[in-house]
Amino acid sequence: MKALYYDGEKAVYREDAPMPQCTPNRSLIRILLADICNTDREILKGYRPDFRGIMGHEFVGEVVESPDASLIGKTVVGELNEGCGTCIYCRTGREKHCLQRKVIGMSKDGCFAEYMSLATHLLHPVPEGLLPEQAVFTEPLAAALEITKQVHIDPALNAAVIGDGRLAFMITQVLALTGVSLTVIGKHPDKLEMFQPYAKTALYDDYFENGRIRALSADECFEYVVEATGNESGIHFALDIVRKMGTIILKSTYAGAANLNLSVLPVNEISIVGSRCGPFEPALKLLQEGRVSFPPVELYALKDYEQAFASRAFKAGFRMK
Amino acid sequence: MKALYYDGEKAVYREDAPMPQCTPNRSLIRILLADICNTDREILKGYRPDFRGIMGHEFVGEVVESPDASLIGKTVVGELNEGCGTCIYCRTGREKHCLQRKVIGMSKDGCFAEYMSLATHLLHPVPEGLLPEQAVFTEPLAAALEITKQVHIDPALNAAVIGDGRLAFMITQVLALTGVSLTVIGKHPDKLEMFQPYAKTALYDDYFENGRIRALSADECFEYVVEATGNESGIHFALDIVRKMGTIILKSTYAGAANLNLSVLPVNEISIVGSRCGPFEPALKLLQEGRVSFPPVELYALKDYEQAFASRAFKAGFRMK
Repeated sequence: MKALYYDGEKAVYREDAPMPQCTPNRSLIRILLADICNTDREILKGYRPDFRGIMGHEFVGEVVESPDASLIGKTVVGELNEGCGTCIYCRTGREKHCLQRKVIGMSKDGCFAEYMSLATHLLHPVPEGLLPEQAVFTEPLAAALEITKQVHIDPALNAAVIGDGRLAFMITQVLALTGVSLTVIGKHPDKLEMFQPYAKTALYDDYFENGRIRALSADECFEYVVEATGNESGIHFALDIVRKMGTIILKSTYAGAANLNLSVLPVNEISIVGSRCGPFEPALKLLQEGRVSFPPVELYALKDYEQAFASRAFKAGFRMK
Repeated sequence: MKALYYDGEKAVYREDAPMPQCTPNRSLIRILLADICNTDREILKGYRPDFRGIMGHEFVGEVVESPDASLIGKTVVGELNEGCGTCIYCRTGREKHCLQRKVIGMSKDGCFAEYMSLATHLLHPVPEGLLPEQAVFTEPLAAALEITKQVHIDPALNAAVIGDGRLAFMITQVLALTGVSLTVIGKHPDKLEMFQPYAKTALYDDYFENGRIRALSADECFEYVVEATGNESGIHFALDIVRKMGTIILKSTYAGAANLNLSVLPVNEISIVGSRCGPFEPALKLLQEGRVSFPPVELYALKDYEQAFASRAFKAGFRMK
């Protein structure tokens, strides 16, 4: 079959990849669409130095073989993290944090291929009427919904999203649905335009004077601040604009240590909530009901992977069938 | 009147201090007992360089004058933070975070004196049968109760308290009441003894091998970790022993920045909750009902303040009447 591998240095396209083996609790999925996540680009820069295998973790596919006969022929999306099934994390709804977990496209073969196998319990049927081109947003949208799973957003309060990229856009749409007063703070006026139907927008630079954050009144600050910039400066800015007793939600993962004056946390009773992968079912529901929407995915053939990775579209991906 | 001042460098005992002035919304309190908090010792080391005035913020007193006639003659304890009354923090139950607040013994005259004035709404009558020697623990106990106010402690899970000082002891007694499986991790075997009626105890060093934290299984880690060591190493250790999706409660305030690899927060979905002053009413209730108890306060005359500050008792204080 066709597949795109990571060989430890670069992406390698093959047409003679072996078909995946299906162990008893796994299903075999024929991939229809697979999207490129920023993590895939990070892998090409060395984010997962020990990984060798087929890349990709955002997909929509058709179940070809499965121990659950009712799934065969169904269109599905699937979660990334296959846990051991027996540890305390797997037994308490935290399979994604299992210390022995395998992650598709990061520590086991992923979805940039014609076929992939995945633990059957990780599959979610795509509801009627939802096109693969929309359903493929399930995984990143679920990551945005992890915020409202972890933190109670009081709709009578206010929130800020820092960042104007894809993740920030998903988060903004999810938070806009709560009714909270919402401001997106970004660096790029052109990118901020697409946020305007969902939130007030502001430029990061407008918070600074002579290279320093300007003095903010309590009214200008926010009860919830979602840090989705992807770089270290985000947490410092988040601490500057969060209200006392407020909550910072950290979505960015970046290498390296941040030098943080931690005493501001107890003194101002700030909470920081780290947030990663999220729940698929509400993501599928919001997509099907049309309560969130995204620009069309720019689709490529798998052999044109270099163009796809270089794409500056909101989202690029591969049409596999 | 007798009073103990901070003059910007040291404590100064005076017997000719002027009586406090009572503005219309304030009450005049005759101090019965006043305890030394570690913050008072920190002030003598320069923690509040701009403060000049009477020290002390933990007290029990009798109301002598008040706009609320029902309070006159009552034994009371009182909260520290007098807010402006009009800002968003004062209007939303966060007076202690008011940017204009005055804090007794830190930015306005405190309770190491025969009399003190305080905003009447900050006073809490001491319930019948509760002795001043017990009621004086209200303020530090309230700070421990701030944890259960901020964080839902699931009694079916486990928790660790890092630290074996006074604050850790208050926190341990409060957490023990939840039924959670509780472990206190300290550095001093002698201090840990007093924790044993309330929690399992463990030595910090037992978590280390050759100067490094040893590999811990998920079962050995904790869902809740309260950092009450008062120094920077606490947060690093807390991150080592907290479970994925677990919560760290930061009670320690210490100067200086900690170098923290923040990406562990989103990757492991850890929450950090900063926690400070807490609610007085449940503290008074638990004290009155005898559900928490503390070693007797070592009491001194105010003129013997040097001995009192040097005391190594669990708690030292002043008998003012």
